[in-house]
Amino acid sequence: MIETIRRVYELYGFLPLSTPAVERSDVLYGSAGVEAERSAFHVIGPDEHEHLCLRYDLTVPLARVISQHPELPRPFRRYQVSDVFRADKPGPGRHRQFIQFDLDSVGVPSDVADTEIIAAMCDTLHALDPELRFVVRTSSRGVLDLLLPFAGIARERGPAVFRALDKIDRVGIDNVRRELMEGYQDASGDVITGAGLTIEQVERVEMFLSIHGDDREEVISALRDLFAHIDGANERIDVLARISHRLHHLGYHDDRVVIDLSIARGLAYYTGPIFEAYLLDAPHFGSVFSGGRYDNLTMRFLGEPIPATGASIGVDRLLAALTHLKRIHTRAATAHVLVTCMDHALMDDYIDMTWELRRAGVATELYLGEETSLGKQLKYADRSSIPIAILFGGDEKEHGTVVVKNLAEGKRHATSAHHRDEWLAAPSQVTVDRAHLLNAVLRAIGENAL
Amino acid sequence: MIETIRRVYELYGFLPLSTPAVERSDVLYGSAGVEAERSAFHVIGPDEHEHLCLRYDLTVPLARVISQHPELPRPFRRYQVSDVFRADKPGPGRHRQFIQFDLDSVGVPSDVADTEIIAAMCDTLHALDPELRFVVRTSSRGVLDLLLPFAGIARERGPAVFRALDKIDRVGIDNVRRELMEGYQDASGDVITGAGLTIEQVERVEMFLSIHGDDREEVISALRDLFAHIDGANERIDVLARISHRLHHLGYHDDRVVIDLSIARGLAYYTGPIFEAYLLDAPHFGSVFSGGRYDNLTMRFLGEPIPATGASIGVDRLLAALTHLKRIHTRAATAHVLVTCMDHALMDDYIDMTWELRRAGVATELYLGEETSLGKQLKYADRSSIPIAILFGGDEKEHGTVVVKNLAEGKRHATSAHHRDEWLAAPSQVTVDRAHLLNAVLRAIGENAL
Repeated sequence: MIETIRRVYELYGFLPLSTPAVERSDVLYGSAGVEAERSAFHVIGPDEHEHLCLRYDLTVPLARVISQHPELPRPFRRYQVSDVFRADKPGPGRHRQFIQFDLDSVGVPSDVADTEIIAAMCDTLHALDPELRFVVRTSSRGVLDLLLPFAGIARERGPAVFRALDKIDRVGIDNVRRELMEGYQDASGDVITGAGLTIEQVERVEMFLSIHGDDREEVISALRDLFAHIDGANERIDVLARISHRLHHLGYHDDRVVIDLSIARGLAYYTGPIFEAYLLDAPHFGSVFSGGRYDNLTMRFLGEPIPATGASIGVDRLLAALTHLKRIHTRAATAHVLVTCMDHALMDDYIDMTWELRRAGVATELYLGEETSLGKQLKYADRSSIPIAILFGGDEKEHGTVVVKNLAEGKRHATSAHHRDEWLAAPSQVTVDRAHLLNAVLRAIGENAL
Repeated sequence: MIETIRRVYELYGFLPLSTPAVERSDVLYGSAGVEAERSAFHVIGPDEHEHLCLRYDLTVPLARVISQHPELPRPFRRYQVSDVFRADKPGPGRHRQFIQFDLDSVGVPSDVADTEIIAAMCDTLHALDPELRFVVRTSSRGVLDLLLPFAGIARERGPAVFRALDKIDRVGIDNVRRELMEGYQDASGDVITGAGLTIEQVERVEMFLSIHGDDREEVISALRDLFAHIDGANERIDVLARISHRLHHLGYHDDRVVIDLSIARGLAYYTGPIFEAYLLDAPHFGSVFSGGRYDNLTMRFLGEPIPATGASIGVDRLLAALTHLKRIHTRAATAHVLVTCMDHALMDDYIDMTWELRRAGVATELYLGEETSLGKQLKYADRSSIPIAILFGGDEKEHGTVVVKNLAEGKRHATSAHHRDEWLAAPSQVTVDRAHLLNAVLRAIGENAL
């Protein structure tokens, strides 16, 4: 997966970057301090007075690098695949350490850069599995902000309103409505603070949310109508319209990218277009690849904004979803061949055969464990999913032959009525001249690949 | 580098494993506790009473996994490439976070497994650079242990003696001699505690150290003579002899693998053969790939030993050494082509060209930065080491052409007398029909590859 993602990112001309797993707490959490952050892993190094933490994402460290290294070329377009750490309650597909694979363009004011990120998201998911059914939902903080004047909501309530909207998928519209007004207590007893909107304000929010559909042009047109009297609305909607037109021109049609006004992205730092990819056949895994424009993230390091946009794959979550969909083909073994060790006196022959195969490019394991019986060694091959075994004992030595046993072939031919021990003993094997070992092994690998 | 190493490890049939960066302190440091460990990075998660640390190597976590998961097949042969963390004083090539790339076989009592690790070390370094001059120095804790009865040294002084021997390369034989006896104060003022040996004992140690040479058979023969009267000496020397014979048979001759009795490996957990690879043209980088047999590492988790052997590459140190030797070819860019943006009104054309190239497999960047002048965009390509630029303005639009500028070609033809601005303006460019863009780009990439 990682190599496939890397290939797409590099095709787009992004460069690899690595940053340390440990950052200063104020870099990660700002001047507000890390104390309030219950999901932080604190780190104590040799200098006990230095406040350090494990990174929780790759975007904030990128902003730190950009700010610290003004000598870097700009645009600075990098990808990074690294572990990140969050001390949340672990659960299925929710780990305290997980892999993010990000791509970001920094120093790019144009919305073509956002278009490019969305296209790269589509190309990446397509490259991982051309049959995968997914959709990228897009929206824009710029457009969402229009909701405030439209519904007469004070600007400072914006974050609470958007946080509530961001939960529609998870908690449903009824609970979002309650959160927008007076708040409520959820099933687990947690108190959800309300945003304090009036019923009239909520009705206007719902007018906004009622704009949806699979046709991006229609959604844009409805947005223009809704916000016709709001100052500056057209310019903000134009951004979405340009992105949509260009994606369409490049072949990313309405079945791939939709405008979905219910997405808001929880993180505070987004300032423009936002995007989230969902797997249509595994929607309960949530967004597997998401991001947006964040023009102000360098403010706290530099005191000035640098326009930037990007997206991040949650590799573990995507892997879990693809595994759930049975769309991931894992290799249980790297070795194609196990050279068994029936007679320790013949070890030099086993070594010869092993290196002969390796040097021909055939990944091969020489059995060096403690089991002496052939049956147990074959069971080891089976457990380890090594498909081919080489058998060589006194008889073979004497006759200058070797036995190539295709365990995978035997397994394919076994009926369900067969017991495992039976197919392990079944004659899916050939005895060949010792000089023809490589040839026989390549033939067996070829059979298994069919 | 990582992909090359992975390819060799997989050819040997090793499987990938990942483990968390954070482990319990007692797992990493044993019951002695982490308090004494000044090189540990402590981690505080949501449960403040849990003692956690960042891992300092990948071997101890492997022993933890093996002990915790008895259901794993055995032999268990895994590779792992991961960051490890040590709160040492940073220095050139010495980082607090660095990458180790390990391969280990667990559940393998046979010294063929050690032979295999040494062969894999040679194959890996050869695969990284077929011209690289390196040697793997081998020895054996089993043979080193014979020194104790031979020199009449009490068993409990063994670790201090071997720690002293391990420093020969760094501090020289004179200082090792002083450390073996009464100790000394080094140049930085640190007091090196002595092992308390008598002059007669040190003389016998030096008899042992005087055995060296490029011929493994000769070293083995001298060892047999020296330890002729020591109980069990032959069996221990036999292990080295078998490894040496088999390596020779497989083509790993005396120029690749030597027996060097001065290596001892600092770590306490080794129990059998030990190995360290050095670059002959960069010896001051020290060992870049090392390991050994460690049959007892699971003792503290399971109360029983499991035979194991393996080795670890310090990827950062090896990279630093190869860079020093100018044997690493880094790519400064992933993109082959920069599509410049001379006229924002033509953005749709730039987008078309960019995706046309990407879809043909040509890694391409579309310039989306804030510079509007072509000269500055070409300088960006130069700084970013992107070799080819696409130029397209009003004239080209009108005539249905496009300019393909080979910046690398221009640079090659520039003499040292030329100023950079001059070659950027030099006519290493072709104007082609717009329909022939891909063809012209592929031709330029081909020219640059020659």
